[in-house]
Amino acid sequence: MVEARKFKVGVLGATGTVGQRFISLLADHPYFVVHALGASSRSAGKPYEKAVNWKLSSPIPHPVRNVVVQECQPEHFKECAVVFSGLDADVAGEIETAFRAAELAVFSNSKNHRRDPDVPLLVPLVNPSHLSIIPYQRSLQSPQLKRGFIVTNANCSTTGIAIPLAALERAFGPLDAVLCTTMQAISGGGYPGVPSLDILDNVVPYISGEEEKIQWELLKILGGICSDSAAGAGTVAASASANTLSTSPSSSNVVAKKFDMHASHPLRISAACNRVPVLDGHTATVSVRFVRRPPPSPQQVREALEQFTTEACTLGCPSAPRAAIFVHDEPDRPQPRLDRDYQRGAGVNVGRVRQCPVLDIKFVVLANNVCIGAATSSIINAELAIAKGLVN
Amino acid sequence: MVEARKFKVGVLGATGTVGQRFISLLADHPYFVVHALGASSRSAGKPYEKAVNWKLSSPIPHPVRNVVVQECQPEHFKECAVVFSGLDADVAGEIETAFRAAELAVFSNSKNHRRDPDVPLLVPLVNPSHLSIIPYQRSLQSPQLKRGFIVTNANCSTTGIAIPLAALERAFGPLDAVLCTTMQAISGGGYPGVPSLDILDNVVPYISGEEEKIQWELLKILGGICSDSAAGAGTVAASASANTLSTSPSSSNVVAKKFDMHASHPLRISAACNRVPVLDGHTATVSVRFVRRPPPSPQQVREALEQFTTEACTLGCPSAPRAAIFVHDEPDRPQPRLDRDYQRGAGVNVGRVRQCPVLDIKFVVLANNVCIGAATSSIINAELAIAKGLVN
Amino acid sequence: MVEARKFKVGVLGATGTVGQRFISLLADHPYFVVHALGASSRSAGKPYEKAVNWKLSSPIPHPVRNVVVQECQPEHFKECAVVFSGLDADVAGEIETAFRAAELAVFSNSKNHRRDPDVPLLVPLVNPSHLSIIPYQRSLQSPQLKRGFIVTNANCSTTGIAIPLAALERAFGPLDAVLCTTMQAISGGGYPGVPSLDILDNVVPYISGEEEKIQWELLKILGGICSDSAAGAGTVAASASANTLSTSPSSSNVVAKKFDMHASHPLRISAACNRVPVLDGHTATVSVRFVRRPPPSPQQVREALEQFTTEACTLGCPSAPRAAIFVHDEPDRPQPRLDRDYQRGAGVNVGRVRQCPVLDIKFVVLANNVCIGAATSSIINAELAIAKGLVN
Amino acid sequence: MVEARKFKVGVLGATGTVGQRFISLLADHPYFVVHALGASSRSAGKPYEKAVNWKLSSPIPHPVRNVVVQECQPEHFKECAVVFSGLDADVAGEIETAFRAAELAVFSNSKNHRRDPDVPLLVPLVNPSHLSIIPYQRSLQSPQLKRGFIVTNANCSTTGIAIPLAALERAFGPLDAVLCTTMQAISGGGYPGVPSLDILDNVVPYISGEEEKIQWELLKILGGICSDSAAGAGTVAASASANTLSTSPSSSNVVAKKFDMHASHPLRISAACNRVPVLDGHTATVSVRFVRRPPPSPQQVREALEQFTTEACTLGCPSAPRAAIFVHDEPDRPQPRLDRDYQRGAGVNVGRVRQCPVLDIKFVVLANNVCIGAATSSIINAELAIAKGLVN
Repeated sequence: MVEARKFKVGVLGATGTVGQRFISLLADHPYFVVHALGASSRSAGKPYEKAVNWKLSSPIPHPVRNVVVQECQPEHFKECAVVFSGLDADVAGEIETAFRAAELAVFSNSKNHRRDPDVPLLVPLVNPSHLSIIPYQRSLQSPQLKRGFIVTNANCSTTGIAIPLAALERAFGPLDAVLCTTMQAISGGGYPGVPSLDILDNVVPYISGEEEKIQWELLKILGGICSDSAAGAGTVAASASANTLSTSPSSSNVVAKKFDMHASHPLRISAACNRVPVLDGHTATVSVRFVRRPPPSPQQVREALEQFTTEACTLGCPSAPRAAIFVHDEPDRPQPRLDRDYQRGAGVNVGRVRQCPVLDIKFVVLANNVCIGAATSSIINAELAIAKGLVN
Repeated sequence: MVEARKFKVGVLGATGTVGQRFISLLADHPYFVVHALGASSRSAGKPYEKAVNWKLSSPIPHPVRNVVVQECQPEHFKECAVVFSGLDADVAGEIETAFRAAELAVFSNSKNHRRDPDVPLLVPLVNPSHLSIIPYQRSLQSPQLKRGFIVTNANCSTTGIAIPLAALERAFGPLDAVLCTTMQAISGGGYPGVPSLDILDNVVPYISGEEEKIQWELLKILGGICSDSAAGAGTVAASASANTLSTSPSSSNVVAKKFDMHASHPLRISAACNRVPVLDGHTATVSVRFVRRPPPSPQQVREALEQFTTEACTLGCPSAPRAAIFVHDEPDRPQPRLDRDYQRGAGVNVGRVRQCPVLDIKFVVLANNVCIGAATSSIINAELAIAKGLVN
Repeated sequence: MVEARKFKVGVLGATGTVGQRFISLLADHPYFVVHALGASSRSAGKPYEKAVNWKLSSPIPHPVRNVVVQECQPEHFKECAVVFSGLDADVAGEIETAFRAAELAVFSNSKNHRRDPDVPLLVPLVNPSHLSIIPYQRSLQSPQLKRGFIVTNANCSTTGIAIPLAALERAFGPLDAVLCTTMQAISGGGYPGVPSLDILDNVVPYISGEEEKIQWELLKILGGICSDSAAGAGTVAASASANTLSTSPSSSNVVAKKFDMHASHPLRISAACNRVPVLDGHTATVSVRFVRRPPPSPQQVREALEQFTTEACTLGCPSAPRAAIFVHDEPDRPQPRLDRDYQRGAGVNVGRVRQCPVLDIKFVVLANNVCIGAATSSIINAELAIAKGLVN
Repeated sequence: MVEARKFKVGVLGATGTVGQRFISLLADHPYFVVHALGASSRSAGKPYEKAVNWKLSSPIPHPVRNVVVQECQPEHFKECAVVFSGLDADVAGEIETAFRAAELAVFSNSKNHRRDPDVPLLVPLVNPSHLSIIPYQRSLQSPQLKRGFIVTNANCSTTGIAIPLAALERAFGPLDAVLCTTMQAISGGGYPGVPSLDILDNVVPYISGEEEKIQWELLKILGGICSDSAAGAGTVAASASANTLSTSPSSSNVVAKKFDMHASHPLRISAACNRVPVLDGHTATVSVRFVRRPPPSPQQVREALEQFTTEACTLGCPSAPRAAIFVHDEPDRPQPRLDRDYQRGAGVNVGRVRQCPVLDIKFVVLANNVCIGAATSSIINAELAIAKGLVN
């Protein structure tokens, strides 16, 4: 049983908002044990409780208070089976690459590697099958890697939408179009993040880069993964083995893979992103059009959402929610303040499933951006990787 | 010149939130003079400043402070050329009907008569031509009326969206589909209205009846008005004259009219309405599809919105905004707190005009729900009716 | 051991905001089991989940969902060892009196009986000794009671302030003066309570009756309880036994008691109460003057607050906080959003203990108004009564 | 008549929040004309509308849009009769000193020179008599100045409290003690200032340095100004004339002055400062004790506040409010959202004048921190200086 074993984990960007959430969520994890904390040189050398400007309402977990913060260099994290990264985008790219090169398994919340063709963009309740690209990712590094890899999770606003869309595609076949408007919490902007003068008694109808992320990331997440017939498995294997001079005999049979970006059924996605004066929880209104005619009824959609099961759950990932999607009956739910903490924020909440006079079906989705939209996703991703034998 | 003449006006529901706004806006009007105030029997008999729980940041206008509030009966409003109604829906229907029957010109912000087939649903910057139904409305009353009529304005969330849509249809021909998500201010719910426990740090993704209003009202507003060939002008004139026994010779040539509900080009509309913690100003994200292919470019749309001129402006209505639509260049505007008071809240603000990957074009619109979305609309409607010679 | 036994409890006003909090807090109580729910006739007869407009972020506890709500009549609560009341003040007085007369033990959050001379106004972390008046309270009823009584807890804003003041008096002797300003959460106003239009982007410097409550209740709570030499124990016992015709032999030696209202050292208290846009958690700035000269130093005060222990804790009340007062070191704490849920809201948070240039010492106190300020207080009061053998 | 003349003015820190407010308030000033704008080198060289991130709800005034921003060097401001400074504290000290040395009249909102013994700390509705120190301030510079000087206004939270306290001292003689708690708006923290994550659904019971400012500044403002008998008028005049080699014959009879810091009646002041989620408007609860026994009644205090007249008003300063103090009758006023814009934010609002059980009298005061608490104060200070012949 996997819980019998404990895994030492590291947290990069440990003093930031995502880092604090990692530490809080890991405090009572059944098999992850926080072992090393990384932050900027300004914090390095200090005990965590002195280095951090703790902003969560739950206190700093006791075992972590006196852990001395390190600089984000792989040698300080050697013993970690898993490294979580909550680094800022301006430094995440290089540091995560260096950690992978040092044979560390990196689960990142940062955007830098999301578009890498060999890095899974993993929403744990949606596309764990994309983890199958990891052997190929390792084979592309020079020298080839045995244990190191990078897995990213999606942008917080993408994640909440991806989950019900995946449920719909599984039940009813491909979607043709998705039109969504988000109302995003201020915690999505980090700390200090959104100035209070900008958001009190206000809505800001723009979040830099956010609409593009949703429109692009959803294609990667909802799309499949296939052997790369264009490049050819052989070609890549060859080039990989050329790099490694056959020192790694396993590399010769690594299959080249690629993400198909939902290519078999082109999916049009339009997002309009807004910041609203809410602390946690991204709400979105979503309208969808199915390829299949006639489309499913609202009642069929409702049932499909409710019955959506995930590999994270069947594999027994301890941080996965029992219900990936909770469907509300009340006409005025989900609401961020009332529903964001349901299932510790690890699932999504859907409500108001009804006919859309322009597309087919519309509904409301709420996801806790700091939990399933960020740190919780990375943690379940790591749990999935362990369950699938990728962490060793 | 119309300003030379002063018009006595009455305000029904004078102590309510819309009534307070009417009184505030009328305080420095060039030709409307507040003459009579109507409210419930609880307030009747008191000077206004004692009857009202004033909630605006500008003080109660001096001339109104000591006006004694009356019950909402026509005899107290006999001398009023114009009566504005901010009554609650539970009483507005009957009272407004009684006022019309008493030959009073009623400009109502209430929903009760909006769906009447002979009552204009007037967004003053959009469809003043619908006022041409008033002679027919009068002819249908029994006895036929000479001066009385009812004009309603639209729901606050409808109004803001209707204005840019009208501009697009004027420039590029009919629309095929509109998909919008609103983020509506708490003042749209009246007073006491939305409990603070429901909205602080929250979004409520539901406002009772609101989506239906937008989807229905837009069709009436954006649609045309035509002579009623089905009923036949003669038929209606006959039935009208039957009622009036020819005492009103003019009635014999009143043309029957009806609203076509955008019938020539069926328009699909889908709205998703949300309440957000904003005091004033309804923001909406809007995606549209045109009938015409290829559709106009974002730049053409932008220019069409900016160049949209209204009859309210050309007729010199003093409360009309100089620019019906102000188009923002900054990527993060309009914002309710910063832009709702521009042009005293009488115009709408549009921003972020851009391609929609699912429909054709998307943009953000902001309208001040308590101004152009409510009292200001009624006031400009009255100014239009005066300019067109309908108030006598 | 008390936990071995289970006690059936009832909740009056079960569908209201305080009632919901009772039900949520009792869900995992070690020995209280929710047995009966009372509400208005409008709710009676419905299963709880249909009757209630649930407003908490944690879901309705499962065992309570299908409990059928009753009217608030004693016969429906006969089996309850303890009855908690979250009734509105307009009905609480009579109902609670009737429940006491029916030999039920009532722990009320309502204000109606707080000023009764024979009813303890109990802040569980401050004055559990006041429970000693209960035999006398029973003896005053006609007929004399064996088991029934009423215990009230204090107003939510009083409670938070009372706890540190009690700690100071215990350590340094009587206080001479207290000057405080509260910044109170909207949840203190119930539901629907404070309209959002009144409090968003605003402070309301007035809460009806609140300042008087703080100024009066603190005297009763911080004052002592003594045998009533004026009335004379004998006198009261006589009149009591006259009522009961000696059927209750114990009644003959009930000692008359009264609350001294801090009479030995008159305490001047001045409160200024404000409503602020915060969901939960009342913050107060407090300045105090001691009788003793010289007064204690800030450091002495800090230590006294930290070391304050309560009978609720030593008696092992399961809902009592481990630390009655948590003293913060950071200069900008306590803050309601970050600290209100510490210890499940059962303790108070104090910070910024420093010299006051006008009185002696000033500090900031934060108490969770819906927990220790309301339902949690009632629950600990009941736990204290059980521990002291008053519930039978 | 002073209005006949126009005065060119400069604004330092023109792109910051205080600078924006200066520019907005000066837009329709009867005799100040914005002539030069200063900001950091990052903004210098750009037209104002490109340099600024405009955050006010009123648009950028037209005449200023294309003014090219300069670096904050005196040569660019030579033609300005008056220079307003909204500079950040980290640069204000030196720049303002340099501007004074260049014979410019500086009216600063920054804190740097507030404690200078020769610089007036001027609340325009309280202590314009302190302007009489300016000749002495000029005489202390080397070389002695003919036209240059610095006048500062007070911290935003000090100002609102100072005005009613001054009214009370004028009517009833010196105060003995003042205890106040502030609830301050986020705009007092500048931009980006308070992070939204820190203040939404929260109160922060600490603002760095604020309590000390109130406690010190009030003494300087409410205290008198007297000839400095210690230094001796002759001594200072001598040293001044030594510096100037008699080129300025007037300098020989400059009287040395100093601020007495309320020394004749030591005044104890205790402030507790809090940040609350309000955009504009600092609210404070204030309790005062008078030296005079018996103290005035609440009704006497109320009348004294209402009747308080200011030199700014009698001298006809165009930006001065008609009523320095508006006293509210309603029990729940003043409120920031409803009352902060009364009189364009140039006066203060007082309410709830009543007995204090600990000191003598307590009341609530509200001042618009961005108007009378900042830019409006500087502007009236300049108007006063002009009226008194100090600008030449």
